[in-house]
Amino acid sequence: MKQDKTKSETIILGIDPGTTLMGYGIIKVKNNTIELVSFGVIHLHKLANHALKLKRIFERVSQLIEEHNPDEMALEAPFFGKNVQSMLKLGRAQGVAMSAGLVREVPIFEYSPKRIKQAVTGSGSASKEQVAQMLKTVVKLKEIPKEFDSTDALAVAVCHHFQRSSPLSGLGGKSSWKNFLKENPDRKV
Amino acid sequence: MKQDKTKSETIILGIDPGTTLMGYGIIKVKNNTIELVSFGVIHLHKLANHALKLKRIFERVSQLIEEHNPDEMALEAPFFGKNVQSMLKLGRAQGVAMSAGLVREVPIFEYSPKRIKQAVTGSGSASKEQVAQMLKTVVKLKEIPKEFDSTDALAVAVCHHFQRSSPLSGLGGKSSWKNFLKENPDRKV
Repeated sequence: MKQDKTKSETIILGIDPGTTLMGYGIIKVKNNTIELVSFGVIHLHKLANHALKLKRIFERVSQLIEEHNPDEMALEAPFFGKNVQSMLKLGRAQGVAMSAGLVREVPIFEYSPKRIKQAVTGSGSASKEQVAQMLKTVVKLKEIPKEFDSTDALAVAVCHHFQRSSPLSGLGGKSSWKNFLKENPDRKV
Repeated sequence: MKQDKTKSETIILGIDPGTTLMGYGIIKVKNNTIELVSFGVIHLHKLANHALKLKRIFERVSQLIEEHNPDEMALEAPFFGKNVQSMLKLGRAQGVAMSAGLVREVPIFEYSPKRIKQAVTGSGSASKEQVAQMLKTVVKLKEIPKEFDSTDALAVAVCHHFQRSSPLSGLGGKSSWKNFLKENPDRKV
């Protein structure tokens, strides 16, 4: 399924999973230059029940993968702060989005919201507005959309790019998941 | 993909999702008689990280669906009692298992542990041993396996059969998910 791409080009799909809105952002990195490919939100609030929402997530993330053929996928993954019921639903949404990647053998990485803010703005406590503003510069966003879910998803993709291109990251330019896991055995994904 | 089956025959795949062991149980219902098709556990504890576990769940549940071609899928779904971190992981495991069904358009139903025990043994507070003992009779289990995850999964499948064959259930013999959702608009799946 994978097309032949030059080694220096990497497409990253960022996902900000949610059960009402799911943001996505796709960037292409070539010679260390980030290019915005696409970003937006998957609307889920009109769907009558949780199963239909999960089905929609799987379908739309699958479409995004089929269409843009990403090399890697990065998720925003909060680990605390919500109640068990909402965490279960969020976990399902994440699991379904991840499945769309797993079934196509796309390596999946995840980052905490704090880590993403830190990577994009330099501050782990930056606001969504600040993250979006910074993306205007980083990926040459023309205007900031009203739904921050899409800019949050773009931020995950950008964070993953910074992570993988940093010599400290253990990735060191190697995009092999096997290598990454070997070098980050405790990495919780 | 679906084979042509007589209307009176229904194959149900029961899943007891977990992140260490995932139980599965498959029954065939024909003329209201339950026949055991297969049951067992998917071992996940040896896999090095959460992503590999999710991948294995997706692959194995997909295999089970391809092999046994179930008409419906039923999940045991606890909704409380664990901390947020474990609920997120459980949610992911559930989401991945559900994806394997969603991608193949297998209708998915879910039942609380209490409801399953009630349906199989008559008591919502029955022990796992009591559930397993009752299954010996209901699905003619020769012996009780040492891992209750597999009998728990069988119990979900049996519970779903009782639910769908009960005139009170709103299913009334109609196995269409569309009908079911229409008649159970608040059903949380």
